Amino acid sequence: MKTKVAIMGYGNLGKGMELAVQEAQDMELAAVFTRRDPASLSIQSRNVPVLPIDEVKKWQDQIDVMLLCGGSATDLPEQTPAFAKMFNVVDSFDTHARIPEHFAKVDKAAKENGKIAVISCGWDPGMFSLARLYGNAILPQGKDYTFWGKGVSQGHSDAIRRIDGVKNAKQYTVPIERALNAVRSGEEIELSTREKHTRECYVVLEEGADAASVEKAIKEMPNYFADYDTFVHFISEEELLRDHVGMAHGGFVFRTGKTGPNKENSHVIEYRLKLDSNPEFTTNVMLAVARAAVRMQAEGQTGCKTMLDIPPAYLSPKSADELRAELL
Amino acid sequence: MKTKVAIMGYGNLGKGMELAVQEAQDMELAAVFTRRDPASLSIQSRNVPVLPIDEVKKWQDQIDVMLLCGGSATDLPEQTPAFAKMFNVVDSFDTHARIPEHFAKVDKAAKENGKIAVISCGWDPGMFSLARLYGNAILPQGKDYTFWGKGVSQGHSDAIRRIDGVKNAKQYTVPIERALNAVRSGEEIELSTREKHTRECYVVLEEGADAASVEKAIKEMPNYFADYDTFVHFISEEELLRDHVGMAHGGFVFRTGKTGPNKENSHVIEYRLKLDSNPEFTTNVMLAVARAAVRMQAEGQTGCKTMLDIPPAYLSPKSADELRAELL
Repeated sequence: MKTKVAIMGYGNLGKGMELAVQEAQDMELAAVFTRRDPASLSIQSRNVPVLPIDEVKKWQDQIDVMLLCGGSATDLPEQTPAFAKMFNVVDSFDTHARIPEHFAKVDKAAKENGKIAVISCGWDPGMFSLARLYGNAILPQGKDYTFWGKGVSQGHSDAIRRIDGVKNAKQYTVPIERALNAVRSGEEIELSTREKHTRECYVVLEEGADAASVEKAIKEMPNYFADYDTFVHFISEEELLRDHVGMAHGGFVFRTGKTGPNKENSHVIEYRLKLDSNPEFTTNVMLAVARAAVRMQAEGQTGCKTMLDIPPAYLSPKSADELRAELL
Repeated sequence: MKTKVAIMGYGNLGKGMELAVQEAQDMELAAVFTRRDPASLSIQSRNVPVLPIDEVKKWQDQIDVMLLCGGSATDLPEQTPAFAKMFNVVDSFDTHARIPEHFAKVDKAAKENGKIAVISCGWDPGMFSLARLYGNAILPQGKDYTFWGKGVSQGHSDAIRRIDGVKNAKQYTVPIERALNAVRSGEEIELSTREKHTRECYVVLEEGADAASVEKAIKEMPNYFADYDTFVHFISEEELLRDHVGMAHGGFVFRTGKTGPNKENSHVIEYRLKLDSNPEFTTNVMLAVARAAVRMQAEGQTGCKTMLDIPPAYLSPKSADELRAELL
């Protein structure tokens, strides 16, 4: 029996999820739900209905897991608690500071209705959270370092676009090689914000805008850019659309720590992701989590969970015997 | 209430475990058991009894987890099933090919007595197994690569010592940088045994032994050396004891995979360990697992487990709320 999943939202994440489901031998796509006019969507999968979001209730008994592919700013804070009343759900809520609040709402909805909801799945939060947790549990005396990039930061790109005279912009967060190597060597150094990342901005100006004042506005913007070495490159819109549409991202999580009678032994744990497609990697993580959610519910678990709560073996389609023989 | 643990065996692992317990705020060392004369052991911890192994039965109600710090060749195949009848136990059984057999014996003993036994904890098997599992679950279309080193291989060192004319020897397994970089670039290459690792041998000859014939015997030894580029260095016993007594080790687990409508997007997951002390890192992993074992038993779980079965949050002394707020 295949696990029946549905996709809520057909943007970059929804499209990545459809591909992920096609690769999974044990999964079947039952439906795609959208807030847009279903007739306007052309999906890859054959014989899968595209349905308006208000029909979702009718599908309660036909779907094992609803894969929520909306955004963290406005979609998921509403959708995850709402749909956790009807379905097991998985989301990729990534506003770190608001996770406890999101968790509480989703937990209540899921528990009251006997469902499992797994939030904040992807790479950060997600795989990077796991790397931090394992590192901290194993090396209790130590330091954490997370580096992001090279990849586009949506928030920083938006901040540039809001400046007068800017037509379009993309901002890359870039980890500084010297800092990576220092951490990798096991030195337990303190790194300032400026020492960890640079910010590379590709900016398209409005006709007649003043490049110097735009550059100044970017570099002096508090929180976003002032604490970093920021590099501004003015390019044409044509160049932006040709060279800067990729969705690559990634980063590094380090845990360094000391052991020994005199703390003379250094240990370095490094977890690195290099991703050509941020949304496709995220949906692959979410789909593995969907598999685990079904198993956890079958055990009688309900409520809100994160990847920190999932026995790793539950993410794999293989049996425990196979995993022990092949991967342990 | 602190978790009461005991250490079985006081070699390199047992000593590392004692240090690990001292660092853990939520753990208390109740006793150290040894097959040697207890009076001959001088341990670090004050007010902790050192006891002969045949007194272990009396301690059944006073220990939450027995940490088995013996070796995989002869100790653990006997000890883990035997002690899983009396205690929750954690071991670092690392003979990969014999894990299914070890699992079956330990599972029976633990289940019949309502105990949890977690086997094969450490870095490989252990953290590397987790890296392989997560990688496979997330990138189902892809390839696995595990590299070990730089570090001493006990098995290969022993093989050299068995050659006529060899007084002592240490063998380092060294991953080949070119291969690491090729995998890291996302190329899904096939690597032969020779392309992944070299073998560096430091050999002390017996008085009058023939260096050339020893070197030939090493380099042509099937399975151990014949398939590798092997480098033999003859040194004095003094040099061996001065320069080659460290217990550093480590390695790399990669999962590379493709996603996208035309599999055009590459992803690289890299998990790297660089460890100054192999036994101290291993015992730190085992101790975090001991914490999880107590929680799993409290939930009503029994039988044999591996790290693949453990919800990651259970490894940490922090609460689920703290973990979500701080590490997710």
